[in-house]
Amino acid sequence: MPQIGLRVEVRDRILVESGLLFGKYGIKSMTMDSLAEKLGISKRTIYECFKDKDTLLIEVIKYYKLQTEEEAHRLIEQSDNVIEALFRIINMTIAQMIHINPNFFHDFRKYHPKAYKEIAEPGSIRNFSITGKLLKTGIEQKVFRDDLKLEIVNPALHTLFDLFNQESSLVEAGYNRRDIFDQVIIPFFRGISTKKGRKLLHDCKSIIE
Amino acid sequence: MPQIGLRVEVRDRILVESGLLFGKYGIKSMTMDSLAEKLGISKRTIYECFKDKDTLLIEVIKYYKLQTEEEAHRLIEQSDNVIEALFRIINMTIAQMIHINPNFFHDFRKYHPKAYKEIAEPGSIRNFSITGKLLKTGIEQKVFRDDLKLEIVNPALHTLFDLFNQESSLVEAGYNRRDIFDQVIIPFFRGISTKKGRKLLHDCKSIIE
Repeated sequence: MPQIGLRVEVRDRILVESGLLFGKYGIKSMTMDSLAEKLGISKRTIYECFKDKDTLLIEVIKYYKLQTEEEAHRLIEQSDNVIEALFRIINMTIAQMIHINPNFFHDFRKYHPKAYKEIAEPGSIRNFSITGKLLKTGIEQKVFRDDLKLEIVNPALHTLFDLFNQESSLVEAGYNRRDIFDQVIIPFFRGISTKKGRKLLHDCKSIIE
Repeated sequence: MPQIGLRVEVRDRILVESGLLFGKYGIKSMTMDSLAEKLGISKRTIYECFKDKDTLLIEVIKYYKLQTEEEAHRLIEQSDNVIEALFRIINMTIAQMIHINPNFFHDFRKYHPKAYKEIAEPGSIRNFSITGKLLKTGIEQKVFRDDLKLEIVNPALHTLFDLFNQESSLVEAGYNRRDIFDQVIIPFFRGISTKKGRKLLHDCKSIIE
């Protein structure tokens, strides 16, 4: 039994630290050998927990997604209203993103297309739970309109989030993400808002850092 | 010279009637032979105007897109405001779509992937001009907010229109297009609207047939 506890602990440490290293240096330059060296463990130990680099990569992303999700849910619960929570979640996301080496995304798409597809595929790892909770809580708070069908609005919102991806024609055309946010995401939220929600959106805009 | 005039006339007739026939029976069952027969002309005449079926198909779609575009621009000019125009354009589009055999879209994707890609590709045949004029006119009419950057809002809107495509996960999941329209397109327009625009949206909703 202590063996199993130890294994879980090692596994988590590999996830946390590999994530930091992939984020810092990109995925390609972080071979399983260099990961083992940096973590001060044997490569065999890594392979005992993850059968290959694709699996490790997917598990790393799942792990960080879960952390982000828990933090986002906490922010929704602790904020005065969902509009404030929305802006705090966005600030958190921006803060995470600026620490990630662009090589990470490049390597991910180029060298791990299967894992990338698995992550990007709707319904697999793509996470509707944060936006789902945000929308649901917003309706309860009378910030969003009560005639919303979340099973339609939620995926539509994610379609708009895809405009921020590296492959989006807007990003490729050189528009900055702040403008895309102001011109697309804010209007969509304004459009599903009640009068109360619209006022909060107007007042909260300055929260973005 | 009269030869050239005649050729243009024949070309246009082939475009108009092939379009109707493709729409009615699908593309696959309409071979170049059956087209020639239905039009009462020789297959050679068709090939003199269009080098192959892919070219004919692309030209047919360009032709009908241009007609739609001209009609839409006319509706924008003749309507009291752009919200009324928006609903009239949507009704026109729905009226066109219900007359098109589902085989048309199926055959297009399956048997003419190159032509399909050319049509679907942004900036090629995909038409930003109707929505561009609608948005621009709406700002002039103080129906839409004057801080809109159309070069961002217009493509974002088309991203939302893509949710109506056969391949969209929402359509695949069985949601009807009317719900997608009410839950996604209307909110987005509401979000970019001024108070005047929001009132018009609210009042005009009943125009949809």
